[in-house]
Amino acid sequence: MKEVVVGSSVSRSFGDFAHTIKEAVDRELPRWLAPHVAKAKELGGTAFAVSDAIAQFVTRGGKRVRPVLMGAAFEAYGGQSAMEILPALLSVELLQAYLLIHDDWMDEDEVRRGGPTVHVALREHFASSRAGEIGAVLAGDLAMGYSLTALLETRTTPDRLAEATRELARMQVEVVAGQVLDVYHDGKVETVHDLKTTSYTVRGPLLLGASLAGASASQKAELEAFAQPLGLAFQVRDDLLGTFGDPRKTGKSAAGDLQQGKRTALVQELLAADRSGEDRALVERVLGIKDAPAADVARVLERLATARPRVEARLSALLDESRAHLARMDLREEARTILAGAVSALGERER
Amino acid sequence: MKEVVVGSSVSRSFGDFAHTIKEAVDRELPRWLAPHVAKAKELGGTAFAVSDAIAQFVTRGGKRVRPVLMGAAFEAYGGQSAMEILPALLSVELLQAYLLIHDDWMDEDEVRRGGPTVHVALREHFASSRAGEIGAVLAGDLAMGYSLTALLETRTTPDRLAEATRELARMQVEVVAGQVLDVYHDGKVETVHDLKTTSYTVRGPLLLGASLAGASASQKAELEAFAQPLGLAFQVRDDLLGTFGDPRKTGKSAAGDLQQGKRTALVQELLAADRSGEDRALVERVLGIKDAPAADVARVLERLATARPRVEARLSALLDESRAHLARMDLREEARTILAGAVSALGERER
Repeated sequence: MKEVVVGSSVSRSFGDFAHTIKEAVDRELPRWLAPHVAKAKELGGTAFAVSDAIAQFVTRGGKRVRPVLMGAAFEAYGGQSAMEILPALLSVELLQAYLLIHDDWMDEDEVRRGGPTVHVALREHFASSRAGEIGAVLAGDLAMGYSLTALLETRTTPDRLAEATRELARMQVEVVAGQVLDVYHDGKVETVHDLKTTSYTVRGPLLLGASLAGASASQKAELEAFAQPLGLAFQVRDDLLGTFGDPRKTGKSAAGDLQQGKRTALVQELLAADRSGEDRALVERVLGIKDAPAADVARVLERLATARPRVEARLSALLDESRAHLARMDLREEARTILAGAVSALGERER
Repeated sequence: MKEVVVGSSVSRSFGDFAHTIKEAVDRELPRWLAPHVAKAKELGGTAFAVSDAIAQFVTRGGKRVRPVLMGAAFEAYGGQSAMEILPALLSVELLQAYLLIHDDWMDEDEVRRGGPTVHVALREHFASSRAGEIGAVLAGDLAMGYSLTALLETRTTPDRLAEATRELARMQVEVVAGQVLDVYHDGKVETVHDLKTTSYTVRGPLLLGASLAGASASQKAELEAFAQPLGLAFQVRDDLLGTFGDPRKTGKSAAGDLQQGKRTALVQELLAADRSGEDRALVERVLGIKDAPAADVARVLERLATARPRVEARLSALLDESRAHLARMDLREEARTILAGAVSALGERER
């Protein structure tokens, strides 16, 4: 494992750095939420149920990719230790909770992170499907409020805080626009990926971390150019894992993605190379069709395997593009090593 | 009309001041939204539909009470002119749009401000009830993002901006918690009023305006004590108007409020004075019952009229309490006059 100098001359690998951030978020998120859940409890049993559903949801895990990237950018641009900006690390996880809670209701997903989604949990709590739906929308709204509240508790200078909050607002607007396109199957696939993945998974967290470290506008422009291919690579890796990965690790199934109508990088690549129109006809019988015949699903998966090498080549090219940007960036060597670690970790992850 | 010195020694009444703010918000809100709607249009037809639904909704009027109060507090604490903080004035209207869009879907309201509510408009646009529901939740989410974006465009010092954003986050968390209690008919009526009305209609906008003027913590504590009874008075006035006002002016009907299960100040007052239990039995046959017999509804309205004098006395007492706080506050005389104008305007409004 590559050794990296992070922050105050502590030597550790990127894997260790990411592990430390993940542990801190796992530990501090329930701690941060506890007084908010207690306050909701004082208001009434229903407010407790909604607030507690958020706490249950966020403490059931998650990869914590966003806080890791935010922390990496913070240290890369001169922040002493990512632990200094702990409330900001929590705020992106709360933002994600808000978005996932609303998305899961829209997509009618019943399971997330090995437990019931919030609209399902609240549907059971209130013994009413409609009350569960309303509760999930309110839980998402409340999680957004918590996200903003947490970010504003970060100890830093007011100008950095205002700049970081601008990044949060930009992420929120972009990802909601992306969700609109995604849910109605509208817009270009690349646009949806840019808004839903690059924006709030990679670019937003990196820029937020850099803002909190006081990075200049030109530094942030460089960082954004670096983040762009990395965000796309994250999405491509996600699609590869979703289609060929181990469902026990990823929690996703290839057939499920197809039935939900996900236009993955593999589907795109297959259709782009389709001269005869046979693959298109086959995919149309399966994509977004909940009760598609198992034989057709299996056939699509076989065909997607033929596109795999080309998609893997595209992933490599995107990672190389990110690394090329990184090589040109005006950074201390330690900072470059941190960000290079992030590129490898995102491009090679197994879950 | 009482003459008031506002801002840079311009002498005008509070009514004129409010009118100026309302006109500016009516004019600038569509102008502010236009580039955001245009950006959504570039992304896709569905993103345009959702973004445009927000624009349609906010430009169809509204009393603009919140920007007026924010502007009043800004000038009271030394701001030159409320026009300096125009993006912040727009941001509370966008926050309200977000909340109303989600609330209207939850309450199954079909009409707002003389036009279709957003879930109804989008249901028609997408020719699907489910697509309309999802679209309304996304439109609300997007409006929240726009609200934050607008606030962060306010030209002021970063510390004032951070403080103002904290007030926005507090309002959002409080009003969503209030909506949870309201939608599930849970918690004390006073708590719901405090969270849903006092917080985001009166206290929040006043504190946000004061924050942008650089008011100190002790000034803000005084302002909060002044805002508390004023917010309750606003709710009581709302209940009086909803029950006895002119539906052509208020857009509300007394029977409609009863059928929706609104526990107004009049209902509370009637039940508090009910010795025999007859009124309670009567109210229970009507409150929250969509198909309650017209004769029962008419009888409840008759009984509510008996509670009217006591509720009006309570309104006066609350306004007096606010005025007493105001008299003790350490303010310039012009500032006191502005805020006194706000008290009278809120307590005596006809719509």
